[in-house]
Amino acid sequence: MRTQVGIVGAGPAGLFLSHLLKQRGIESVILESRSRAHVEARVRAGVLEAGTIDTLNALGLGERMMREGMVDDGLDMRFRGRNIHLDLPGLTGRSVRIYGQLEVVKDLIAARLAAGDPILFEAEATHLDDLTVTRPSIHFRHDGKNKILDCDVIAGCDGFHGVCRASAPEGVIQTYTRNYDFAWLGVLAKAPPIADMTYTNHDRGFALCSRRSSSISRLYLQVPAEDDHANWSDARFWDELHTRMFDENRSEIQEGEIFQRDLAVLRSYIASPMQYGRLYLAGDAVHIVPPAGAKGLNMAVADVRIMARAIAAFYETGSSDALDRYTHDCIDRVWRTIRFSVYLTDLLHRFDEHSPFQRGMQMAELDYIAQSEAAQRLIAEQYVMLSDVRD
Amino acid sequence: MRTQVGIVGAGPAGLFLSHLLKQRGIESVILESRSRAHVEARVRAGVLEAGTIDTLNALGLGERMMREGMVDDGLDMRFRGRNIHLDLPGLTGRSVRIYGQLEVVKDLIAARLAAGDPILFEAEATHLDDLTVTRPSIHFRHDGKNKILDCDVIAGCDGFHGVCRASAPEGVIQTYTRNYDFAWLGVLAKAPPIADMTYTNHDRGFALCSRRSSSISRLYLQVPAEDDHANWSDARFWDELHTRMFDENRSEIQEGEIFQRDLAVLRSYIASPMQYGRLYLAGDAVHIVPPAGAKGLNMAVADVRIMARAIAAFYETGSSDALDRYTHDCIDRVWRTIRFSVYLTDLLHRFDEHSPFQRGMQMAELDYIAQSEAAQRLIAEQYVMLSDVRD
Repeated sequence: MRTQVGIVGAGPAGLFLSHLLKQRGIESVILESRSRAHVEARVRAGVLEAGTIDTLNALGLGERMMREGMVDDGLDMRFRGRNIHLDLPGLTGRSVRIYGQLEVVKDLIAARLAAGDPILFEAEATHLDDLTVTRPSIHFRHDGKNKILDCDVIAGCDGFHGVCRASAPEGVIQTYTRNYDFAWLGVLAKAPPIADMTYTNHDRGFALCSRRSSSISRLYLQVPAEDDHANWSDARFWDELHTRMFDENRSEIQEGEIFQRDLAVLRSYIASPMQYGRLYLAGDAVHIVPPAGAKGLNMAVADVRIMARAIAAFYETGSSDALDRYTHDCIDRVWRTIRFSVYLTDLLHRFDEHSPFQRGMQMAELDYIAQSEAAQRLIAEQYVMLSDVRD
Repeated sequence: MRTQVGIVGAGPAGLFLSHLLKQRGIESVILESRSRAHVEARVRAGVLEAGTIDTLNALGLGERMMREGMVDDGLDMRFRGRNIHLDLPGLTGRSVRIYGQLEVVKDLIAARLAAGDPILFEAEATHLDDLTVTRPSIHFRHDGKNKILDCDVIAGCDGFHGVCRASAPEGVIQTYTRNYDFAWLGVLAKAPPIADMTYTNHDRGFALCSRRSSSISRLYLQVPAEDDHANWSDARFWDELHTRMFDENRSEIQEGEIFQRDLAVLRSYIASPMQYGRLYLAGDAVHIVPPAGAKGLNMAVADVRIMARAIAAFYETGSSDALDRYTHDCIDRVWRTIRFSVYLTDLLHRFDEHSPFQRGMQMAELDYIAQSEAAQRLIAEQYVMLSDVRD
C-alpha cells in the first residue's frame, strides 16, 4: 500500500490535515486504531477560535458548524461573589463559536468518506520504519493482517499515547511537563445553559458552566485527581455547582438530567522538536494543554495548517526546507498557548498546596482584572486568537 | 509630652504623614530611633509614581525633585537577547520620575525642621500603651531618659522590625508571607547609565540597570540569599552584568567606580488588619514588597494619604468611622501592589527550583509580552499608577 502522506490518527489533527492536503491536491491515508463509532463518541471541548472557524469554512466544511454552532461573545470569571464579564467582541473585535469537537470530527469524517478518500478504522499502527530515508513506512494491523503503508511523509496525529512520538530514538525529543493533582469532572445535562461561558474560583474549588446548545449544558467541577464518578450523585453535583458559582439560592443555574460524565486529569506537556526525519507530529501527540481556555483542538488545527503548507511546498519545490522548519514555525505558538492555559489554570483553581499568601495573590489578581481594561483585553485576545496562523 | 498624632518612624511613611497632617492643621511628633545622619544615608529605591510626585508637589515640597529628578518614559525587559520596550507615556499617558527615596527623605526632614516641627532622633519607642482607650501613649527613651508621648492617635511607621505592629495582641493581626532564596546585590557606580530602566531575565539570573542621575548608575544582580559582598570584586560584578544584559561585547554598559554596595534579601509580606485600637500602621510596618517594580515608597505614601484623610475626618467630625475603615480602604490596593511586585519577580528572576517546563513558561510569557500591546499596557499601567489614591 502506498500514498503520499500517511496520517496516523483520525482525531481533529489528522482529519483536518487530510482535508487541507486534499485541497492542495495531495493524497493521504488515515490509519485510526479505534472504530468510527468510538471516534465519533469521544466528548471533548467545544470552543472554536476564529482561525479554526475560518479553516473549516475555507475547506467548505463549515456549513453545519455555522448553522448549529453558537457565537459566544462573553467569557465570565467569578470570585468572592463578584463577576468579571469579558466582552470578547468589544475587547478584541472577534468572538468564538461553541461547537463540540465531536461534531467537528463527525463532519470531517463524513466529508472524507463521501469523497471516497481512505480512512482505515480499527487499523492500529504498530511501528514506523525508515523514518530517516526518503520512503518511510507505517506498519499496522488491519482486518487481522499485518500491513505496510509506504509514504513520502508520515504525520503523527495519534495523541499522547500513540506510537509515532515514541518512534523517534531516545533523546531526540525533549519533553516538558507539569502535572496537577486535580481533575475536571465534566457532565452533559439536559438543561438550558446560563448566558456566558463562566469560570469560577470558589474557596471550594473551580467550576465551569458552558453549553453545547440552547438546551444542553456542559458543566465541570474541579475534583481530586483520584476522585471517581461514583462519589458524585447528581444531587451532590448540583449542590456543589450552585455553591461554587455563588448561586446560593439556586435561581440561576437550571438543573436537568445528567446524561454523560467524564473525568479528565489535568496535565501540561510539550515535546520538542515536533519532528524526526520524515515524521512530523501534531496535536496531542506533541502537546497536552490543560483544558481551561479550550485550546486543544485549536492548537492542533494550527499545527496541521503549518504542516500542510510545508508538505505542499515540499511537493511543489522538491525542497524539504519548509518541512525542516516545521518545529521552528510552530513551537513559539505552542509554548504561548500552553502558557495561557497554564495561566488560566493557575488563576482559577484551588490548589491544596497554596499558602494563604498564594491564595491572596489569586484573589488580588482577579480583583485587578475586574477593574483593568488592559488585563481583560489580554485574556480575551488570547482566548479568541492565540492559535492564529498566517497563511 | 502630648500631641495629637504620635508618629513612630522617620522613614517616608512617617515623614509624609507628618506633612499631610500639618497641611490639615493637625500636629504630630515623630519619634525616630536612629540618628538623622543614619536616616539620611539609607539607600533605597528611587522610582516615584505619579501619585507620589503629585503628593510631594501638593505639599509644596517637590521643588528639588522636579528640578533634579529625571522623567523616565521607558521600562525595558530583556530575554534571550531580545528587548521589550514599554513606552510608558504611549501606553498609559503617564511617566515615572527617578529621584532617590534618600533624597525624598532629606527634603521632608529639612522642611519639617525648618518649620520648627518636632522630629526626635535617637528616640527609641520601647512600648505602646492604652491602645484601646481614647488616650494611647508611646513610651520611648531619649537623651538617656524614659519618656512618654500621649496622643489621640498613634501612627506606626517604624518598619518591619518596629515595635508598633508587635504591640497588637497575638492573633489580632494575620500575616501572609512568601520568601525567596535570592537577594539583590545593588551598587551605585560613577558611570553614565543606559537610556531606560532595564530588567533582564538571563539564564544566569536577573539583573537591573537603572540610574540615579545622568552620571550615576544604580545596578543590581540577583545573587543567592546567603551570598556576600566579599565574593563580588568590581571586575566580577561588571563581567556578570554585561553577560546578563546581553552586552557581550561590553559596548553598551559603561563601567565606573563602584562607591556603594548593599544586599537585600527578597521577601513578600502582608499584615492585616493594618490597625488595632488607636494604632494605625503604614508602609514596611505592615507590608514588605519585593523590589522589582519599585513599589515600597509609593505604597507607603498611598497608605499615609488614606490615613491622613481619616485622621482629619476624625478631628473634623469627632467620629472614628473613617479611621475604622482604614484597613478596608487600603487593603485591596496593598494586595494588588504586592501581587504586581511578585508577578514581576516571578517573571524576571531565575529560580533554582524551576523545572525546564517552568523556565519555558517564563520565556513564553516574555515572548507574548513582546508582541501584545495589551500585555505591555497591563505592566505599564501597574508600574506607573498602581498606588493611585483618590482624594
